[in-house]
Amino acid sequence: MQRALISEMPPGLRERYGEVRGLSEFLCAPLTAEDMVIQSMPDVSPPKWHLAHTTWFFETFILAPNVPGYRPFHPRYGYLFNSYYNQIGPFHARARRGLLARPTTDEVLAYRAHVDRHLTALLDTLDAAGWARLTPLLELGLNHEQQHQELLLMDVKHNFHANPLRPAYREDLRSAPGTAHPVDFLSCDGGMVEVGHDGPGFAFDNETPRHRVFLQPYRLADRLVTCGEYLDFITTGGYQTPELWLSDGWATVQARGWTAPLYWEQGDDGWQMFTLGGLRALDPATPVSHISFYEADAYARFAGRRLPTEFEWEAASAAADAYPADGNFLDQDRLEPQPAGAQSGFKQLRGDVWEWSASAYLPYPRYRPAAGAVGEYNGKFMSGQMVLRGGCCLTPAEHLRATYRNFFPPDARWACAGLRLADDL
Amino acid sequence: MQRALISEMPPGLRERYGEVRGLSEFLCAPLTAEDMVIQSMPDVSPPKWHLAHTTWFFETFILAPNVPGYRPFHPRYGYLFNSYYNQIGPFHARARRGLLARPTTDEVLAYRAHVDRHLTALLDTLDAAGWARLTPLLELGLNHEQQHQELLLMDVKHNFHANPLRPAYREDLRSAPGTAHPVDFLSCDGGMVEVGHDGPGFAFDNETPRHRVFLQPYRLADRLVTCGEYLDFITTGGYQTPELWLSDGWATVQARGWTAPLYWEQGDDGWQMFTLGGLRALDPATPVSHISFYEADAYARFAGRRLPTEFEWEAASAAADAYPADGNFLDQDRLEPQPAGAQSGFKQLRGDVWEWSASAYLPYPRYRPAAGAVGEYNGKFMSGQMVLRGGCCLTPAEHLRATYRNFFPPDARWACAGLRLADDL
Amino acid sequence: MQRALISEMPPGLRERYGEVRGLSEFLCAPLTAEDMVIQSMPDVSPPKWHLAHTTWFFETFILAPNVPGYRPFHPRYGYLFNSYYNQIGPFHARARRGLLARPTTDEVLAYRAHVDRHLTALLDTLDAAGWARLTPLLELGLNHEQQHQELLLMDVKHNFHANPLRPAYREDLRSAPGTAHPVDFLSCDGGMVEVGHDGPGFAFDNETPRHRVFLQPYRLADRLVTCGEYLDFITTGGYQTPELWLSDGWATVQARGWTAPLYWEQGDDGWQMFTLGGLRALDPATPVSHISFYEADAYARFAGRRLPTEFEWEAASAAADAYPADGNFLDQDRLEPQPAGAQSGFKQLRGDVWEWSASAYLPYPRYRPAAGAVGEYNGKFMSGQMVLRGGCCLTPAEHLRATYRNFFPPDARWACAGLRLADDL
Amino acid sequence: MQRALISEMPPGLRERYGEVRGLSEFLCAPLTAEDMVIQSMPDVSPPKWHLAHTTWFFETFILAPNVPGYRPFHPRYGYLFNSYYNQIGPFHARARRGLLARPTTDEVLAYRAHVDRHLTALLDTLDAAGWARLTPLLELGLNHEQQHQELLLMDVKHNFHANPLRPAYREDLRSAPGTAHPVDFLSCDGGMVEVGHDGPGFAFDNETPRHRVFLQPYRLADRLVTCGEYLDFITTGGYQTPELWLSDGWATVQARGWTAPLYWEQGDDGWQMFTLGGLRALDPATPVSHISFYEADAYARFAGRRLPTEFEWEAASAAADAYPADGNFLDQDRLEPQPAGAQSGFKQLRGDVWEWSASAYLPYPRYRPAAGAVGEYNGKFMSGQMVLRGGCCLTPAEHLRATYRNFFPPDARWACAGLRLADDL
Repeated sequence: MQRALISEMPPGLRERYGEVRGLSEFLCAPLTAEDMVIQSMPDVSPPKWHLAHTTWFFETFILAPNVPGYRPFHPRYGYLFNSYYNQIGPFHARARRGLLARPTTDEVLAYRAHVDRHLTALLDTLDAAGWARLTPLLELGLNHEQQHQELLLMDVKHNFHANPLRPAYREDLRSAPGTAHPVDFLSCDGGMVEVGHDGPGFAFDNETPRHRVFLQPYRLADRLVTCGEYLDFITTGGYQTPELWLSDGWATVQARGWTAPLYWEQGDDGWQMFTLGGLRALDPATPVSHISFYEADAYARFAGRRLPTEFEWEAASAAADAYPADGNFLDQDRLEPQPAGAQSGFKQLRGDVWEWSASAYLPYPRYRPAAGAVGEYNGKFMSGQMVLRGGCCLTPAEHLRATYRNFFPPDARWACAGLRLADDL
Repeated sequence: MQRALISEMPPGLRERYGEVRGLSEFLCAPLTAEDMVIQSMPDVSPPKWHLAHTTWFFETFILAPNVPGYRPFHPRYGYLFNSYYNQIGPFHARARRGLLARPTTDEVLAYRAHVDRHLTALLDTLDAAGWARLTPLLELGLNHEQQHQELLLMDVKHNFHANPLRPAYREDLRSAPGTAHPVDFLSCDGGMVEVGHDGPGFAFDNETPRHRVFLQPYRLADRLVTCGEYLDFITTGGYQTPELWLSDGWATVQARGWTAPLYWEQGDDGWQMFTLGGLRALDPATPVSHISFYEADAYARFAGRRLPTEFEWEAASAAADAYPADGNFLDQDRLEPQPAGAQSGFKQLRGDVWEWSASAYLPYPRYRPAAGAVGEYNGKFMSGQMVLRGGCCLTPAEHLRATYRNFFPPDARWACAGLRLADDL
Repeated sequence: MQRALISEMPPGLRERYGEVRGLSEFLCAPLTAEDMVIQSMPDVSPPKWHLAHTTWFFETFILAPNVPGYRPFHPRYGYLFNSYYNQIGPFHARARRGLLARPTTDEVLAYRAHVDRHLTALLDTLDAAGWARLTPLLELGLNHEQQHQELLLMDVKHNFHANPLRPAYREDLRSAPGTAHPVDFLSCDGGMVEVGHDGPGFAFDNETPRHRVFLQPYRLADRLVTCGEYLDFITTGGYQTPELWLSDGWATVQARGWTAPLYWEQGDDGWQMFTLGGLRALDPATPVSHISFYEADAYARFAGRRLPTEFEWEAASAAADAYPADGNFLDQDRLEPQPAGAQSGFKQLRGDVWEWSASAYLPYPRYRPAAGAVGEYNGKFMSGQMVLRGGCCLTPAEHLRATYRNFFPPDARWACAGLRLADDL
Repeated sequence: MQRALISEMPPGLRERYGEVRGLSEFLCAPLTAEDMVIQSMPDVSPPKWHLAHTTWFFETFILAPNVPGYRPFHPRYGYLFNSYYNQIGPFHARARRGLLARPTTDEVLAYRAHVDRHLTALLDTLDAAGWARLTPLLELGLNHEQQHQELLLMDVKHNFHANPLRPAYREDLRSAPGTAHPVDFLSCDGGMVEVGHDGPGFAFDNETPRHRVFLQPYRLADRLVTCGEYLDFITTGGYQTPELWLSDGWATVQARGWTAPLYWEQGDDGWQMFTLGGLRALDPATPVSHISFYEADAYARFAGRRLPTEFEWEAASAAADAYPADGNFLDQDRLEPQPAGAQSGFKQLRGDVWEWSASAYLPYPRYRPAAGAVGEYNGKFMSGQMVLRGGCCLTPAEHLRATYRNFFPPDARWACAGLRLADDL
């Protein structure tokens, strides 16, 4: 959480609050009441729970400490919708979120309306000192809700895929076959670079402090690895060749019987892919997605390359920012990664799929978690996970930065994640 | 399945079809759409699944083979709603029934209406031979649906209990404190008795054939064990005394940390019990319920008695049939067991709680499962389970018989099951 | 445990003590020190543990209460070598017996010598009252040790099979190919029969009391099912046909990937079978062995027959006792079941393989466990297991009776168990 | 594996071969044949397996490819004693190593003698080109065996601890109570430093290539954290305070019920610690050991400090090399960490306990695994583990370097591992 000094109401913050909160509900519009309860595995949360938890976040970290005499909307919602903040109190077991038929969707929407009402009322009362104090938390709450918007769609995809009927979240999503262009490896100088966030805008605490790292010269692919390229890995026995895998990766492949990315299935007419628009024929030109770190790493070894570190990625991405880059984000409403264009230079650095890096998710030098319970937001997860960069087609565009560090365990596949190759120069 | 010879439409069968089918939907009336999807553990099925599966049963075993050109309502419902009939085809994994947001409740109700329409149309076309052929299957289908009505309520109770909000299925259920009268042990002669079903009415195949068994003289308690009596077992250390338990039972107590029946919890004002009407203060006069066979067996040992065999129970119950007996069934709409009355003679033999017997669930001599896929209904489960007798407060009254054999694994606690003590004479 | 009234030292008991105790050590002679520690799965115990536990039994139930001032050989052996007697005290976890390198084999043999010395000294001091009091426990201790001799060999087989080197317990065991004769089904009258033990000799408490049961007429195969017959079941898809299986059995087949009896493996030259003499070519004439109850039951269904109840078996076996019957027991030192002879009448009722019955292991009417901790010997296991009858090629001949009830869980395969078919008459 | 260019036989290599091989057997001298088989958990290997596997390593990577016509000592030992080299072929499951009673210890020793004889014979035939080719593999084989010597003792400790008798590996080990001196934090400049191995001596491939990293100024404790300090963490509720833990760490504490380091237990007279010399009273001055990364990290947070990165450690350690440093290694034969001395400057950087770093085990920039199957030695494990530095009291002194990178999963506790605190300057 960024501790910026703000002397008055940031322009547009109040409007943005309304927009962000509204978007969460808009994303649930295609869902039935029954869809709102489903939790297909412990990593996934029911849509209803996302709506309630993001609301609890504002209620707990902003309303409760700042509205005199504020009483929680419901005495047990704190228990139900606290995700993992031990300093706030005990909470409902993650794996049992899908058992919560109650509160119903309507009751959760009433909870949202109640908190929104009190929060906007609170904003009306703030003086400059109040804005200075609350803006970082408001920003955190909004960015938190944006993270859950992305998660909500990833979770809905997993939930719908668990149903043999393979229902579509939306029937109106369209995809046009694309063309894959040859990959190009662009040289990067390396040397002493600065990474991490510094400056006036919002960033999560895990992006700070900005600091220097030394990089050797390297090369980075100008586009993502495609489904067609990944299919080569499959058809030449990638999933049957232990030498290509990390030891943990190979053990996972064996234990879970992986033979392709998560949502791929072989139909009578060839490979198909489950999407938020239902089953589609696999398009070889689109970026491969829904693979684990282990698979990304094995593919890179198969290709004679490697994954980039998160710092190599950030250095290249920061430089590439000079170029106009329209990413494929949630705002584009495609909800699936798209083929790269034919132009020269880096493509797909923003949006499309999260890119697995070779970096473990660890604290930056002199990192300090935010004070209080919100300090549990990021820091305590800095173990056993890998960093991903660049956002994906489900990320709100406004939510991303070049310094943004996403993270997932190396065996996670329900995230919209793929890879970009790197190499030594 | 009883193979009766019937020359024409059995009186009232068509009306009964409508009543039984209607009751299933009526039982779901207090549930929200979200409630309809919940599966709190693999043994439990979502309410929506019960509604669909019972419909699939009629569609598969009656409509499909008897209506020329009948096309299933939906090509995949057979996969989703077949419970375990291998001879029909593959089926959705039991533990994943709670992931089926779709079909929605409305779609399931449409499925029910479709099958009901076709089935009643079929009945209109039957001649005497048709009635003779279909009546056993119709009876089976209706009895099957009644079993699921009872299960549906047991499952709803478990689902609601999994929610920390402890919601009530119905707010209008009332209970009045009762009085426990001293137990009396009634003598039974034993000798050569006949058990099992024979005759014109419906019975499941596992109740046949009627056959002779030899019983030594025995005594049977005139009423069920009460919560108050069971509380003595708890407070004198029953759950901490391995000598009282079967070896498997003791291992289960240790592994699951059992210290009381399933729905009991200690509140600030003493023991409470979760019911379909929400949390209630424990009434010592009511029969103990939601205990496993292991607990029933341990309690009997604690009390210096034993459980009756299913044959001892049936012999006593058949004799007691001469007396007027109004059981506490689903029809009474109490949905919880009630204290025994003060009259002399056997009480609570019908309804209130299923009574664990000392008998393993095994085939009767010369038992033959019904031919075809419906032969999988009972026979293949004759392993690893114990017999229970007498019905419970969630059983439709019309569904029960003295020869009725219910069965559950010895560690099951979500069934509405308690015990009646027996002893040697 | 049989409570016989004995007025003086039973003839030969002292010699028998020496013989039984000596046999246990003799059976370990082919084992290395390393072999003595192995526990290939929780159901199995290391040979060293068998030697120590049987010794602890005599020390705990005879020496400690009857030798004034007796101090246990080692203060912690009670913890290590108590198997499951909760009334004696806490004990080492069963699944961790294979971690006990210490005490070493030599130390265990010293323990045995110590207890033998004290026990024979005690016997020297007994008067008639003493003999009357201790003979039942001595008999129990010796029969207990005989059970462990059989178990020790079954466990050694499993331990050796867990080693990819497939070592032989003994290199000198020979087998000659036999001839299978057609099976004959012999008629049995049924009616009211008496089963269970009564009389002067030793029997376990679970064989008592003798009581009447009513049997319908039945037929029983004159010999055991052979490997050749079972091979038909395999080659015609028995393990792939769910209709042949109990539901629990089918689930077990799927979960564990069973495709043949435990010790069968397909070699380049056809089926082989692992034995205590190492790998051998499968002999179609020998009785099938090392199958679970589920497999025995499925085979019987495949053959259009059924398993006999334990009472059908006992009634036939008691009648057959009139005929001279030399069983294939441990005393014959074949250590594998042998083909049936060509003579008419029942064959292989004694020895060869334990025969799975259709009966759950339950207490006989008016059964009472022995008083005190030895009451935990049998009674508490009367749940979740099936009865087997007849002894096997690893059973000491003297140990068996027609009333003997062995029991194993329905999925156990490391026991030397097969089946004999039965049918209705 | 370092690819040095060597023109002739390295001085002393042949003698060192004999010494290293002999030490492995010497370390097993106090063990009984039964001890040689034990595997108390999957991470641990039986002592006998260590002896055989290290021998297989020389046989497979040196004898087989370099001795014309060499036939493996036993056709199945390759299967039994290959640890994880997929490119060599399939191998026995790690968790089942403790089931291998055969080959016996004597047979394994014969295997060792056989390989030693052939290997020394091979050395006699080498010309300069041969030495150049084989020296790296010989060095790798010897360093590999030294790693297993350390592991063997760690495993023996775990095996012995699994036995309720708590036997001692050696009765002659002595410990004298020490004095803990206040900790001092020494300043380190940071800046651009070089880390990793380069030069003539042996190093594992994971220590290469040497490369530059940029460090901010930092401070490093002059000694290890002591048992006394760690006891403060325990007594002030460290194991009950989720804020002190990483999320994965807290989940592990809950799931396994951790309340103290692995070998600590509370006796009537206070805390005791299990050692290779048996149970001892806890000495507050000795370094804490047998803690997981999670515990090291939580303790550091409790102390208001942090763990050093592996690069901070290496930079400080390389600088400290100028000072005379006698570490407490296997050569000192204490087999337990010892209290730090009173002198100023860094203490205990070498030996005593492995020091958990804050660094995930990842490849160095431009890291390339060795070619062929030995490339599986390190590289494939670079996922999910943390780096430890500095060696321990069970490490052969000659085996260690400042650049040495050990690695264990963050939940591992059976390694002899503790921590040194760091802080920002």
